[in-house]
Amino acid sequence: MSKQRVLTGITTTGTPHLGNYVGAIRPAINASESADVQSFYFLADFHALIKCHDPALVHQSTREIAATWLALGLNTDNAIFYRQSDVPEIPELCWMLTCMAAKGLMNRAHAYKASVDANLAAGDDADFGITMGLYSYPILMAADILMFNANKVPVGKDQIQHIEMARDIAARFNHHYGEHFVLPEAVVDDNVAVLQGLDGRKMSKSYGNTIPLFLPEKQLKKSINKIVTNLLEPGQPKDADTSTVFQIWQAFATPQQTADMRQAFAEGIAWGEAKKQLFELINAQVGEAREKYEALLANPAHIEEILQAGAEKARAHSKPFLEKVRAAVGIKKIQ
Amino acid sequence: MSKQRVLTGITTTGTPHLGNYVGAIRPAINASESADVQSFYFLADFHALIKCHDPALVHQSTREIAATWLALGLNTDNAIFYRQSDVPEIPELCWMLTCMAAKGLMNRAHAYKASVDANLAAGDDADFGITMGLYSYPILMAADILMFNANKVPVGKDQIQHIEMARDIAARFNHHYGEHFVLPEAVVDDNVAVLQGLDGRKMSKSYGNTIPLFLPEKQLKKSINKIVTNLLEPGQPKDADTSTVFQIWQAFATPQQTADMRQAFAEGIAWGEAKKQLFELINAQVGEAREKYEALLANPAHIEEILQAGAEKARAHSKPFLEKVRAAVGIKKIQ
Repeated sequence: MSKQRVLTGITTTGTPHLGNYVGAIRPAINASESADVQSFYFLADFHALIKCHDPALVHQSTREIAATWLALGLNTDNAIFYRQSDVPEIPELCWMLTCMAAKGLMNRAHAYKASVDANLAAGDDADFGITMGLYSYPILMAADILMFNANKVPVGKDQIQHIEMARDIAARFNHHYGEHFVLPEAVVDDNVAVLQGLDGRKMSKSYGNTIPLFLPEKQLKKSINKIVTNLLEPGQPKDADTSTVFQIWQAFATPQQTADMRQAFAEGIAWGEAKKQLFELINAQVGEAREKYEALLANPAHIEEILQAGAEKARAHSKPFLEKVRAAVGIKKIQ
Repeated sequence: MSKQRVLTGITTTGTPHLGNYVGAIRPAINASESADVQSFYFLADFHALIKCHDPALVHQSTREIAATWLALGLNTDNAIFYRQSDVPEIPELCWMLTCMAAKGLMNRAHAYKASVDANLAAGDDADFGITMGLYSYPILMAADILMFNANKVPVGKDQIQHIEMARDIAARFNHHYGEHFVLPEAVVDDNVAVLQGLDGRKMSKSYGNTIPLFLPEKQLKKSINKIVTNLLEPGQPKDADTSTVFQIWQAFATPQQTADMRQAFAEGIAWGEAKKQLFELINAQVGEAREKYEALLANPAHIEEILQAGAEKARAHSKPFLEKVRAAVGIKKIQ
C-alpha cells in the first residue's frame, strides 16, 4: 500500500512565533519523520495575497517561514517542501474546480458569513469590502489538496469546513468526469497546544501579542518579560492554571519540569524569576535552531535552492496528474 | 508608437456556423490584416468548461474552431493565435486578480443576475445551480485581456460590462501595486451582422437553428432548404425585409447582388429558387475554405503544431510580464 499523504500549507503573511512553533511547526516536523506518511508542506503565497497587499511583507514572510522550517530540522529528503507559486498546476486546477464548485457552497463558508454579518451589523452592504479572494479561498485550498491527492489534512476546528468543501468539489468532479480525486479527510488534533500571547489571549499576529520564535537572545528575554502577570509579590502563592507564564512553560517543559514549576508557583516564586526560567527553557530549546536560522537568512540563495528542489519533487506529481485532469475535461492536444 | 493590441476569445463549445462567420470570424480575420494592430485570437477552452461538461465536445470544438480560422485564411505570421490552456500564466494571473476583485462587482454581472432572477421566479434559492465558474467568469476574462495588455476588445453589447469589470480590476491592481495594466476598451461595432437562423430567430447554438459553416455541399443545400418561409407561391411578390432567406443573402452578397435579389423578391421569385441561389452564393464563398478545412482536420497534428507555435508567441509576452506582476505582489525568488 502506498503511503498516506498528509498536506499542510503555511500562509506567508507573518513572522513565525512561539504559538506557531508549538501549535503547528513542531508537531508537523515530528509527524513528517514517520515512515508511514508522505508529507507535503508548502508556503501558501497565493493565499497570502488574499489578506496581505504588502509585497515586501509577503516576500519577507516567505523567506522567514522557509528558513524557520528548515532551521527546525524539517527533513526535505523525506517531506516535500515547496512554495505554492512554484507549482503552476495549482492555479490551473483551481480554475477547473471553480467550474465544478457550486456558488451556494461558498455562501456557507464561515469566514465569508462572518464578514457579511459584520457588514450587516455595521449597516453596510452585505459584501462591503469583501474580495473574490476571500470568497473563493476554499476553492484554491481544494486545489492545493486535490492536486496531490492528499489523504489527510491536519487542521484546526475552524478549518474543518474547508476540507468538507474540498471533498464536495472533488466528489462533484469525480461524478462528472470519472474518479480522479481522493476525498481528503480533516485531521483535528485536540491536543494541539494553543499558546497564550503576551496579553493572555491566544497568541496571534492579529492581536499583536506574539513572541517571535527566533528573536535574538536579548530581545527574547525582553519579550518574555513583557508577559502580563498579576501584582502578587515574591513569596505569595500564585495560581499556575491562570498564568500565561505557566501556560507557555508547559508547552516547552517536560512533565517533570511542569510539575516542578507548579510547585514553585504554589510556593510563591517571584514573577521575575519565573520569567527568567521560562526564557532559559525556551532559549535552550531554540538556540541551536536560531543559529541555523540566521545562517540560512544570511544565505538566501541556499533557501531558494531548497525550495526549487522541493518544487521539482512536487511537480513530479502535479504535472502528470494535471495532464490527466485536463484530458478528463476535454483539454488535450489535437490529434 | 507600438501597435494597438486587439484581443478576441472564442469559446470552444460548438461547431462554427454561418452566424459566427459573418458576425465574428470574417470581420476579425479582416481586421487582423491591418498593419496598425497586433491581434490576439485565442481558443477559450477554460471558458468552455464553465458551460460545457462534455469533454469530447470541448475537444472537438477546439479542433473545429482552430481549423475554421486557419482555413478561412487567418495569417498566423501576423495574428497571435493560441489556445488559452497553453498559457499557464493566465490562470495564475486570474488568481491574482481574484484577490483584487470586489465581490460586489461580480454581483452586478448581467449573466449572473439573469440566473438569479430566473431562480427566484421559479421559486428556487437565488444561487440554485449556479457554479463559481459562471460567477467568476468576468475575472478569467479580465486575466485573458490584461495578460497581454490589450488595448481594444471587440465585443457585442452584452459584453461591454465585462470589459468595464476588467478595467475596474486593473485599476484596483494598479492603485495597490503600481501601474502594470493597460485599461482595455470595449469596441462595439454596430454594423456587425447578426444572422437569422433557420427559424428566423438569431442564429445561435442555443436555439438549435444554425447552419454549420463547413457542412459538406449536399448537406449545406439541405440545410438552406430548411429555412422557414411563408406560404406565398411562385409569382406572388415577397417581402425581402421580413425574410430570413433575404437576410442571410445580404450578409454574403455584394450591394449589387442584394439589390437584384430585392427586385427578384418583389417580382415573386419562388422560395425554392431563392434558396437555390442562396446556396450557390454561400457555397461559392466557402467552398475553397471548406476544402482547406477538411484537409486540416485530416491532419490534426498540423493544427496542433500551429497552436503550439502560437502559444510560444503568446508566452513570449505572458511569461516575462507575469514575472513582473508576481514581483509586484511579493512573489519572487528569495534573495
